[in-house]
Amino acid sequence: MKPFTILALTLALGLTEGPALADVVLINTFEVPKGQREATITAWEAARDFLAEQPGYISTELHGSVTQQARFELVNVARWESAQAFMAATEEMRAAGVFQPPADVIANPALYTVIAAD
Amino acid sequence: MKPFTILALTLALGLTEGPALADVVLINTFEVPKGQREATITAWEAARDFLAEQPGYISTELHGSVTQQARFELVNVARWESAQAFMAATEEMRAAGVFQPPADVIANPALYTVIAAD
Repeated sequence: MKPFTILALTLALGLTEGPALADVVLINTFEVPKGQREATITAWEAARDFLAEQPGYISTELHGSVTQQARFELVNVARWESAQAFMAATEEMRAAGVFQPPADVIANPALYTVIAAD
Repeated sequence: MKPFTILALTLALGLTEGPALADVVLINTFEVPKGQREATITAWEAARDFLAEQPGYISTELHGSVTQQARFELVNVARWESAQAFMAATEEMRAAGVFQPPADVIANPALYTVIAAD
């Protein structure tokens, strides 16, 4: 990927710091309208299959709530080699039109680093 | 813990199913007002120190956002041996008054199981 592309992606995602080269964690919380859980999981699986083939992908875990009326019924936690790799992969995914969740699903993706572990 | 206490906790947390004996994942997203990140982390560390000593605790990771204006600046992902163990531990923590985040911090805790991993 060319340097100006990396810069554009960095600006697009609004990173607070310069290019992060350490592993990053995508945490994506999904607000899922009643009755849309299975359709959302199916859409997520298609996205996962696409993203798992992209450079920099490490792993992912989709979590389903066991708490009644959880605000976020599904939460994806995925590891990537860098913020740039994640952004490039999701750009590719958007261009390919792979992720098609039900219309009322609200996703809240953001990138994180682990700041404390025990 | 007596059976009726477990039942009361199960109802309090609003579990959709009966007592879950498999590992569960607590995901707690924090909405943190500007300038309150460090104070929230300090409060979380005190809670972590308390909870790590309780029965059923497995591990925890606190994530800090690297995305500008992330809706959730901090996200805790913790593993527990069961929903009952987590609920008993957090009851103890509340009784002890250990977790004292800044007043405007909004926490959204819920329990999950991993439904897809790759």
